Amino acid sequence: MVVNEFIGEATDLLRRTPEVLRTLLVGLPDSWTDTSDVPENGWRPHDVVGHLITGELTDWIERTECILEHGTSVPFETFDRFAHTDRDADATLDELVEHFATLRAENLARLAELVSEEDLDRRGMHPSLGEVTRRELLATWAVHDLDHISQIYAGMAGSHDAEVGPWKTYLGILLRRDDPSAIAG
Amino acid sequence: MVVNEFIGEATDLLRRTPEVLRTLLVGLPDSWTDTSDVPENGWRPHDVVGHLITGELTDWIERTECILEHGTSVPFETFDRFAHTDRDADATLDELVEHFATLRAENLARLAELVSEEDLDRRGMHPSLGEVTRRELLATWAVHDLDHISQIYAGMAGSHDAEVGPWKTYLGILLRRDDPSAIAG
Repeated sequence: MVVNEFIGEATDLLRRTPEVLRTLLVGLPDSWTDTSDVPENGWRPHDVVGHLITGELTDWIERTECILEHGTSVPFETFDRFAHTDRDADATLDELVEHFATLRAENLARLAELVSEEDLDRRGMHPSLGEVTRRELLATWAVHDLDHISQIYAGMAGSHDAEVGPWKTYLGILLRRDDPSAIAG
Repeated sequence: MVVNEFIGEATDLLRRTPEVLRTLLVGLPDSWTDTSDVPENGWRPHDVVGHLITGELTDWIERTECILEHGTSVPFETFDRFAHTDRDADATLDELVEHFATLRAENLARLAELVSEEDLDRRGMHPSLGEVTRRELLATWAVHDLDHISQIYAGMAGSHDAEVGPWKTYLGILLRRDDPSAIAG
């Protein structure tokens, strides 16, 4: 293989995320997309895609470059978990998905220039977590996608919490919105 | 609109699921897809897609027809939650996704023949839950998709539980695999 297996497999997943979001969300009626993952202080799909955009703008590639340039001597910038709130207030969900897709494509091209097998164990300094490796950063980029797409699914399910009637008792994705310790039905 | 808004919106979501599964899973390396959603008695993506196939084969359309033919006088057949275990043992994940896509397309065509706005409040008899409506059955079909795709995401994330290193503490999708009451980071 031209690239390291780990890099290739992580990149394969990262490349799929924009297309998954397009397939799932673009053109879907608001009745599915206007509900938060949890009832209190949750995020709607609009917030989640905004948060993914923030990662592309300020986090994953910037931190990769920080490791390459500074190793552990300069800590990463803190991730602003609410940067999307004002920035994306006027954008539609469909616009955010397309913006995310553009940024992700640019960042994967940049990653291909920056990353190589022998660099995966190089270390950087996370402002809270301490020393981390490039390998961990790359795996986290991918799992962070999975975490937040799952959050989109929780909000979409929540939009039809009432409509399923008595079947709710079998639907773990709804039960967990009310009680995180509920076991999937 | 030609169809009732509720029917159209539910169908819109149901139509997207096979394409989401294709985009997410087909051709993805086993390193992402060979892990269960929870460590004990969980389901790998292969099991989840098998379970979705069972729904297409025996549940959603059959129950819709049961309501139309019998109302509440004949209870639905019980859903076999483990029918996939033997049936799909020799199929690849990619094959299951394509089989599901074929069945879903057939069932949405059948649904379009069977369902109309004025029938949505017609009632059937669930073997455990009691009386349910066609509207609830249709909403449940869609939310059941969301529930189980979310389960696929949990397994995919779990496959890289170790690789993210200290970042795990921020990744709710991983924390919940170990402790369902963990709050998303």
